Amino acid sequence: MVQTTFFAPDSVPLIAPGQPLAPVIVESFSDAGIDLADNDILVVAQKIVSKSENRYRRLASITPGEEARDFAARCQKDPRFIQAVLDETERVIRCSPGVFIVRHRRGYCLANAGIDQSNIDPVDDDVVLLLPEDPDASARQLRSEIRQLAGADVGIVISDSFGRPWRLGTTGVCIGCAGVLPIHDQRGQKDLYGRTLQVTQPAIGDEIAAAASLVMGEANEGRPLALLRGLSVIPGNPPATELIRASNEDLFR
Amino acid sequence: MVQTTFFAPDSVPLIAPGQPLAPVIVESFSDAGIDLADNDILVVAQKIVSKSENRYRRLASITPGEEARDFAARCQKDPRFIQAVLDETERVIRCSPGVFIVRHRRGYCLANAGIDQSNIDPVDDDVVLLLPEDPDASARQLRSEIRQLAGADVGIVISDSFGRPWRLGTTGVCIGCAGVLPIHDQRGQKDLYGRTLQVTQPAIGDEIAAAASLVMGEANEGRPLALLRGLSVIPGNPPATELIRASNEDLFR
Repeated sequence: MVQTTFFAPDSVPLIAPGQPLAPVIVESFSDAGIDLADNDILVVAQKIVSKSENRYRRLASITPGEEARDFAARCQKDPRFIQAVLDETERVIRCSPGVFIVRHRRGYCLANAGIDQSNIDPVDDDVVLLLPEDPDASARQLRSEIRQLAGADVGIVISDSFGRPWRLGTTGVCIGCAGVLPIHDQRGQKDLYGRTLQVTQPAIGDEIAAAASLVMGEANEGRPLALLRGLSVIPGNPPATELIRASNEDLFR
Repeated sequence: MVQTTFFAPDSVPLIAPGQPLAPVIVESFSDAGIDLADNDILVVAQKIVSKSENRYRRLASITPGEEARDFAARCQKDPRFIQAVLDETERVIRCSPGVFIVRHRRGYCLANAGIDQSNIDPVDDDVVLLLPEDPDASARQLRSEIRQLAGADVGIVISDSFGRPWRLGTTGVCIGCAGVLPIHDQRGQKDLYGRTLQVTQPAIGDEIAAAASLVMGEANEGRPLALLRGLSVIPGNPPATELIRASNEDLFR
């Protein structure tokens, strides 16, 4: 039997701007009675990574350009907020009242380039929080710091919640990873009856992030960390950007 | 601390066409030393539900129409297979060499209307397996039968693996459920700092299916069942079709 357990500590302190994350992570699990171990997979919410990397912007410091003012009028949002989104954006996918969906410069397609104002401190309508500059690099660095602090070789998944075409609601997705294979290409293997599999390519990174979201919550639970223990994953170190379809290969459009 | 465990038994027998599923499920977990209990969530792979419901079609029995022959030429697939897909389809989304993506008559957008030939017995290129006729009804019935057989009130998620726009690979999704709230609308709740949440609406059903996929595998693992224990979920009984965006509300298109 395969058995896998997720742990999400309740006692994670709020992260101050620029505060190093690795010590908080190790201590939060230690306080919950869990010592990090080799082959554990640690899921870290994007929001605390961004806070730790001080990815705040003050809207008051932003002067919206003409394009931002135009989109802002169409989606009925603050033009300075839209300028902050455009500064992170490769191209705009959809702009309509209340909706601004873009392809982020790192390839993710999501609302508002992942910039948001919930669960950030201080409660200040002037402050927004961007995604980490390079979530794969953040994951690699966290992995290295945790190895130094705790002596454990853990895999890291940095998770965010995205909406998706065709289906309602959000699910956890992997925007950065280290030491975890984000996508497992099983095409060419045989099925239970010896037939060659044509399309089996599970997006392990996203499934880990989605699973973690179940124990982390997304609203006000204050659980930005989850540990996954017992999953036998394929070792590997490709970036989470492997999960992104090239625009010209998007068979669903 | 929140702690949630997934169990996936290795010893699930292959399901014969029309074989009742509930006794196999109860026995598989019992053989693995697990008695089903109230509040457990049981994830069942679509494929064994379809087998149990005898959702096979023989290609030899299908005469493709003109539309099927036209699509088949464009996507380079068997016209009889394409006719089987069209028989389950509301509209065709994309047809190009090797690719046939449709909106299923129940609303799911996916390749080949979910019809496939892997992991089905007998290995016979003439046989294909459709999705269950009504996966929500299948879930409700399984739930009721398991309550009778095992005396446990479990939630049921029937899972499949879908590809998705914008991102590579497949993830587990919920195509039918009973006793599990498939989507948890937290909009209007307060965040950690008292700010009202605007968009927090986790797709719990899909996240459960994605998580289960990690322990079930998707290729040749022979683990079509997973049990999720320890997750505190909101009680509720809406159908999994709540996870489907109406075509005219698809903000991502």
